[in-house]
Amino acid sequence: MNMYDIINHKKQGMRLTREEIRFLAEGYTKGEIPDYQMSALLMAICFQGMDEGETLELTLAMRDSGDVLDLSGIEGVTADKHSTGGVGDKVSLVLTPMIASLGIPVAKMSGRGLGHTGGTIDKLESFPGFSTDLPISQFYHNVNTIKMAIMGQTKDLAPADKKLYALRDVTATVDQLSLIASSIMSKKLASGADAIVLDVKTGSGAFMKTEEEAFALAREMVQIGKNAGKKISAVITDMDQPLGRAVGNSLEVKEAILALNGQGPLDLMEVTYALGTELVLAAGKASSPEEAKDLLRQSIQSKSALHKFAEFVEAQGSEKRFVYQPELLPAANIQLQAINTEEGYVSAIQTEEIGRANLALGGGRTTKDSQIDLSVGILLHKKRGDLVRPGEALATVYANGMDAAKEAYGRVVRAYHVQEMRPEETLMVKGIVR
Amino acid sequence: MNMYDIINHKKQGMRLTREEIRFLAEGYTKGEIPDYQMSALLMAICFQGMDEGETLELTLAMRDSGDVLDLSGIEGVTADKHSTGGVGDKVSLVLTPMIASLGIPVAKMSGRGLGHTGGTIDKLESFPGFSTDLPISQFYHNVNTIKMAIMGQTKDLAPADKKLYALRDVTATVDQLSLIASSIMSKKLASGADAIVLDVKTGSGAFMKTEEEAFALAREMVQIGKNAGKKISAVITDMDQPLGRAVGNSLEVKEAILALNGQGPLDLMEVTYALGTELVLAAGKASSPEEAKDLLRQSIQSKSALHKFAEFVEAQGSEKRFVYQPELLPAANIQLQAINTEEGYVSAIQTEEIGRANLALGGGRTTKDSQIDLSVGILLHKKRGDLVRPGEALATVYANGMDAAKEAYGRVVRAYHVQEMRPEETLMVKGIVR
Repeated sequence: MNMYDIINHKKQGMRLTREEIRFLAEGYTKGEIPDYQMSALLMAICFQGMDEGETLELTLAMRDSGDVLDLSGIEGVTADKHSTGGVGDKVSLVLTPMIASLGIPVAKMSGRGLGHTGGTIDKLESFPGFSTDLPISQFYHNVNTIKMAIMGQTKDLAPADKKLYALRDVTATVDQLSLIASSIMSKKLASGADAIVLDVKTGSGAFMKTEEEAFALAREMVQIGKNAGKKISAVITDMDQPLGRAVGNSLEVKEAILALNGQGPLDLMEVTYALGTELVLAAGKASSPEEAKDLLRQSIQSKSALHKFAEFVEAQGSEKRFVYQPELLPAANIQLQAINTEEGYVSAIQTEEIGRANLALGGGRTTKDSQIDLSVGILLHKKRGDLVRPGEALATVYANGMDAAKEAYGRVVRAYHVQEMRPEETLMVKGIVR
Repeated sequence: MNMYDIINHKKQGMRLTREEIRFLAEGYTKGEIPDYQMSALLMAICFQGMDEGETLELTLAMRDSGDVLDLSGIEGVTADKHSTGGVGDKVSLVLTPMIASLGIPVAKMSGRGLGHTGGTIDKLESFPGFSTDLPISQFYHNVNTIKMAIMGQTKDLAPADKKLYALRDVTATVDQLSLIASSIMSKKLASGADAIVLDVKTGSGAFMKTEEEAFALAREMVQIGKNAGKKISAVITDMDQPLGRAVGNSLEVKEAILALNGQGPLDLMEVTYALGTELVLAAGKASSPEEAKDLLRQSIQSKSALHKFAEFVEAQGSEKRFVYQPELLPAANIQLQAINTEEGYVSAIQTEEIGRANLALGGGRTTKDSQIDLSVGILLHKKRGDLVRPGEALATVYANGMDAAKEAYGRVVRAYHVQEMRPEETLMVKGIVR
């Protein structure tokens, strides 16, 4: 077996065998297969695709290229959640304590963000003293005792995927569905949870611009998960405007705490409930979606999710008081209000422009080693469909420097589109793939 | 401008601009563009193709990546010939002295062979003392005085092509027509001749297995040549069995000398005349194909081509007597006759098997640095369509060791197919693209 033949087979539209896929994944991880052969194969895959079996094999081979977390020592059906990424997406911060408060163990590995906003790990670091660099024994202990722990991805999680992704990123081979699906799923499978819910975003601010693409990706990932023996489903949700009102790390944490206090924005809660319902059902804690949603609602109303979150924050090195007094969290010095000039309805908020405003403020990463300013961000006072009058504030920019504040301000103003007619309402949840 | 965007454009089926093609050819030659990006682009080109303009630009960019020979100091229309390669192809050895004897200057750069048989350069080295490592001033001098010189390719001839070809060779991206055409033509254009004739081989022993592919490649190359201002045409010729009777370096030289003495095998002569006719017409030495062919015939009958060859051999460091007494050329020690066992007609000779037999004898190269044994090879006594009786010799293997002789013998016997029915005659010249 050699890489030349494998490239040639895929170029000619042939199915790669299990042995060929194992050979290339192992050889590439070890550095025995050079980048230039792998990139030729990746491009051939972009044109010829991979079928369900090939995609599963690639996923499993990448999963097995590094550490695979063993969660078998944890009682109950362990739960994990993944989002394909968007702006203002703090769902994990709200959802995980809700789930844990219902007795479903949440053992989650999260990444740092690269791009417009921080990842879950970055956001959690808004809590002074919070650590996601847990020894694995501590991680297991926390999940067993308080039903919840979130740690950073171990360095050796699916290294084949890490190396492949870096190559795809510079060879214009990122956008192939089976490659995207296997990349995400290799890490999820290596993280070891029994039940997985995927939040596949669609819209102008998402990687998948159209619902069609989002559903296709969701189906690929769910199929991989099922074939790998997982309880898995995907919820396709709207990312045509930022989710909720807060964009930026500590601002998003504050909004998540508001949500756990029963004051979350409707769009954020709708997505959170939809994803939570899937996990509650998968864990066997409810027998119908309605029952699952009721349990989730009660976790908010009873404040049990809020208390769970405080417990979790404390268990990972910070203090409960930051959850109960979120005003103690990092805050930026400068606040600039973006003022509306025309009467009408907000018809669109360009999600990526809001993301870039946050990046300009220092709230995101441009390179892997960038330092994030956790205190900056944008609060959106108006969202799509809202009536706005001249002089009203559309949004507030939170900054730590005037130059950055001004750039972000300009981007935020440009992001808003106002028209006379009230736009049609859009559904937050476009569908579910089980 | 960056390589990522160029890959992406081609992946999406867009036309690459002149600037993009120059950028990538220059950047790759300088080592500024990494192999892994170039191989991704090459694979995208395999799927999306290149149009006439793109192919021309790539050819010119590769031509300009190194030395371009300036033949303007040579009087008359300089001629060059290229073959896509086959087994027993000694046409250059016969054709170039014929052309030169008609007063058409032949200034030819040739390569060494990699594969079953040696290249023209290797074959010529059968003449003791012969050198193709000419100083450029000597090369010009010889062409001006005796109308003929053949030198090895300079190290800096189309280095972009050299680097690209090496990459294509290991990434399964060799077989794209525009890439093949631009690779060949970049070197031909850098060699500087005014008139070029291409011998595009087709059949089981050729790179282009079908006539359709051969014609398509011929059209691409002729189009590039015309767009670059050259007088150019291509002759599509049969390579379904070895050309002529001799396979192996000094054996082929001996057959070429036979041909210059008017005793060449018919198939070899038919191809030689067809290619020569194109060059004579391009050089303006005749006004019709018939007239051109007459001139070529006379060059054989009058022995002027033979004398020209002797002059050429002497001018490049060997002696005329080797041309007039070819029995002085290197000869192998062992001769093994492959004997026929069944009565019938030769229906096919597997060309590649004969090539591999020569390789087994040491007559070809398996790596760039292999030493070639110039004296070994195979003489085919029977060719397609010949009637053979049990006990008759099909071919003779010329070897310098018994093990190699036996392996070659087995391959030669296996290469011959005999059947009861006389096979249909095949045309040596399938067509001409002008």
